[in-house]
Amino acid sequence: MSEKWKTAITKVEPNKLLIRGYRLDELMGRLSFAEVVYLILKGELPPPAVAQVLNAILVSSIDHGATPPSTLAARTVASTGASLNASLAAGVLSINRHHGGAIENCMQVLKEAVEQKRDGGLTAGEAAASLVKFRRQKGLKLPGYGHRVHTNDPRTAKLFSIAREAGVAGEFVEMAQAIQEAFARETGKELPINVDGAIAALLCEMDFPVELANAVFIIARIPGLTAHVYEEMTTQKPMRIISPADHQYDGPAERKLWRINSPER
Amino acid sequence: MSEKWKTAITKVEPNKLLIRGYRLDELMGRLSFAEVVYLILKGELPPPAVAQVLNAILVSSIDHGATPPSTLAARTVASTGASLNASLAAGVLSINRHHGGAIENCMQVLKEAVEQKRDGGLTAGEAAASLVKFRRQKGLKLPGYGHRVHTNDPRTAKLFSIAREAGVAGEFVEMAQAIQEAFARETGKELPINVDGAIAALLCEMDFPVELANAVFIIARIPGLTAHVYEEMTTQKPMRIISPADHQYDGPAERKLWRINSPER
Amino acid sequence: MSEKWKTAITKVEPNKLLIRGYRLDELMGRLSFAEVVYLILKGELPPPAVAQVLNAILVSSIDHGATPPSTLAARTVASTGASLNASLAAGVLSINRHHGGAIENCMQVLKEAVEQKRDGGLTAGEAAASLVKFRRQKGLKLPGYGHRVHTNDPRTAKLFSIAREAGVAGEFVEMAQAIQEAFARETGKELPINVDGAIAALLCEMDFPVELANAVFIIARIPGLTAHVYEEMTTQKPMRIISPADHQYDGPAERKLWRINSPER
Amino acid sequence: MSEKWKTAITKVEPNKLLIRGYRLDELMGRLSFAEVVYLILKGELPPPAVAQVLNAILVSSIDHGATPPSTLAARTVASTGASLNASLAAGVLSINRHHGGAIENCMQVLKEAVEQKRDGGLTAGEAAASLVKFRRQKGLKLPGYGHRVHTNDPRTAKLFSIAREAGVAGEFVEMAQAIQEAFARETGKELPINVDGAIAALLCEMDFPVELANAVFIIARIPGLTAHVYEEMTTQKPMRIISPADHQYDGPAERKLWRINSPER
Repeated sequence: MSEKWKTAITKVEPNKLLIRGYRLDELMGRLSFAEVVYLILKGELPPPAVAQVLNAILVSSIDHGATPPSTLAARTVASTGASLNASLAAGVLSINRHHGGAIENCMQVLKEAVEQKRDGGLTAGEAAASLVKFRRQKGLKLPGYGHRVHTNDPRTAKLFSIAREAGVAGEFVEMAQAIQEAFARETGKELPINVDGAIAALLCEMDFPVELANAVFIIARIPGLTAHVYEEMTTQKPMRIISPADHQYDGPAERKLWRINSPER
Repeated sequence: MSEKWKTAITKVEPNKLLIRGYRLDELMGRLSFAEVVYLILKGELPPPAVAQVLNAILVSSIDHGATPPSTLAARTVASTGASLNASLAAGVLSINRHHGGAIENCMQVLKEAVEQKRDGGLTAGEAAASLVKFRRQKGLKLPGYGHRVHTNDPRTAKLFSIAREAGVAGEFVEMAQAIQEAFARETGKELPINVDGAIAALLCEMDFPVELANAVFIIARIPGLTAHVYEEMTTQKPMRIISPADHQYDGPAERKLWRINSPER
Repeated sequence: MSEKWKTAITKVEPNKLLIRGYRLDELMGRLSFAEVVYLILKGELPPPAVAQVLNAILVSSIDHGATPPSTLAARTVASTGASLNASLAAGVLSINRHHGGAIENCMQVLKEAVEQKRDGGLTAGEAAASLVKFRRQKGLKLPGYGHRVHTNDPRTAKLFSIAREAGVAGEFVEMAQAIQEAFARETGKELPINVDGAIAALLCEMDFPVELANAVFIIARIPGLTAHVYEEMTTQKPMRIISPADHQYDGPAERKLWRINSPER
Repeated sequence: MSEKWKTAITKVEPNKLLIRGYRLDELMGRLSFAEVVYLILKGELPPPAVAQVLNAILVSSIDHGATPPSTLAARTVASTGASLNASLAAGVLSINRHHGGAIENCMQVLKEAVEQKRDGGLTAGEAAASLVKFRRQKGLKLPGYGHRVHTNDPRTAKLFSIAREAGVAGEFVEMAQAIQEAFARETGKELPINVDGAIAALLCEMDFPVELANAVFIIARIPGLTAHVYEEMTTQKPMRIISPADHQYDGPAERKLWRINSPER
């Protein structure tokens, strides 16, 4: 009834494990987790500069407070007495088309725009202007632009500056910005690139399949969800009614990060 | 009906995000993902040596081929046409008491043994011998010892050597090994520490709450599950009958990792 | 690596299906869904009176409005653009120790009390009084008693009256009420049996394993969760912030059920 | 930040619950679970004949042995030590486009065909022939037709005969059969309507929204999944490797259902 099936990810032999051809015990201690994430998803090791950008992407999305639906779903499930992993699963189920999904949709928009630019021999500005006009006519949103809390998302600027320093920023980053400018010219309104849009541009630069965009966000967000679930379990009463807007931060006040930037990271 | 509730993880203000008091945009580019994982779970930044050990733990658990139940559950759900995140959720639901859960159970055993050593003024060997005797009398297993595939798990040795170099190995690592020796003396049989046991010892050294052991494994394994789900979606037929034993590795042959160990990682 | 394993639920042959030995096509049209639920869970068909009680239990738990955590979790996940089944899965993950779980815990309490009554040759009142005293001394709650909305839950009275008419009410129902009375005598306070407690007593009468209590609640609640998820998908905006307390009923006003009680149901 | 939102399903007041306007305690004991399922999903009570058909649909899909992916996913998760509800959630995550999803797809096909028949003033046979030709030209499958185990699914015939007796079979059932005949004429091959196709036709007759097709299947299958998870937990070793093909039925032998058909059911 079943057939011999193939897998190209991990070879398991007694006392030997290969991840995409590399011995797992050789990867340990020599590569950061982000580098091995890249390896397992893409099949090859990243150049150090690319690893640095992926690290920054993962850090940028680790948490966004108590109001995102993934956090609320995970906390709600935790409050019923669910185990930690079941609570995380509910969080993962919430990372979808409308939450985190803007990364995938923005990647598609950027890929189309860059293709149009290349095929039509256009400048980035021309391709962006044509895309903005087309989407406005069709009543389509611009995924990866605008944010309900941040008008000038600090994560966006930082991601782009890290990518530029690392030499990873190319025509997708250029296009992401050209679209923002085209939108402002067309409408007279600012609709800044948000963190999803910035990540989308960088995943395009790194040639990630669009189908993995959501997974990158999930990988990044699981630790944040874990912190929320653990906090819920250890500091809150079971079965409380969780009012999303009605909470207060009582963690450490702002503190300075003294540590020096190490180029390998 | 609802009360003002508190959270100490992330402060969200317009254009400003603090993770445990640190500006998220300052963490980006300066810290590896593993360091920020440590920060968000434990509330403080890790010393560089500790970050290196956590990186190695996460890398060690990124995947173990196609047969673990979390992988089979995720692939089975994916084969029905589920979205990537729903497939990952099924994988997360499988990381439990019997799969990944040995880390938590082994942490508890090691903590008890070290406490007994301290309180009773015993040597590690004496505490270990007493624990092994007790558990054998009660018919209790030793979680974190033995493996159905590996007799000499390469990940265990590597984790301990990284921890020793980093100065992180202390009395929990000592106890983990004393238990292995006590078991061999008591029974004449080898029951080597497996990767779960090694991770357990290191999480004890880093003073992680036992309740987070499972989450560390989930954080590490999500990228591996993603690779499997994506492979299932892109290379296999929907609704196939997935026979766990009946697969073959067809990825790259063993290849050499040339890259030099960089001390910061 | 794998062994031949056994299953006693359903026999599948070409053009023939047996559920616990009965041809599925013979069950269809002759038995109600609740009767076949009983068959598949317990291995035997229920007498008609028992089927009537199980039908009433399932009806009693079909929904409880928008505030239970399972409903909020399912709606939250749905609002992110998840599919219907993924939203339901999040709801199912919320039916746990603290939500629905009182049925299981109350079954255990009732079983202990009835056992004590039988073994000690006590009256129900004596066993109940001793149980209430013991739990109050230990600071243990009485699962299945009290409700945050209802002081006199209409579902409880109805379940007990249906069970009495059907001849299903026996010493577990007697004990459930003896405990309520013992509590009132002991404390001077009313802590009425809630719907979970009533279901617990009836599942004990029907000799259901306690481990299936949660499943009975899930079977009953899935249609309610479905209605909520579908309403969320068709009438609400994606990614809205769902404030649990802040909703209003706008469905049909109270209407009369004219239909005559048919004894077979 | 949040708005007053509306829900039309259940009104919860102290000591009073209305489901779509009916008092829940009045529904209990007077209506079967399937009738209240219909009420909560569609907003109105079904006529008795319709209730009978819905009961038969739910019974028909309660289980299909150990090999469907939802069963395997639920058992796999259960074998890791997951709780019953988490195991069921994994099963629910597997009921999707390719598993159970044929009901939804077949409903769409039947609706299109019936619309074409009505709009074009065609006979069922003409509309069916045109649809079969079109789909074969486009390389599209016929969802709801053919089965990998059954050539003459006993559930299909029974569902249609129950629906005919109940007066529920109308132009969708006619179309479902016209398509089977058109396919045979066109290709010379038999591709019989399977249980999904029969359910699809009946849900169309009952005017169910296509978006709820999957939910009807989930409602029906949860008890079967529960039986499998409970069997896994009570009779199998944890972390066993579950080989889908390698199992044997060891339940009761075929037995006769003596009970007389009661018209109210």
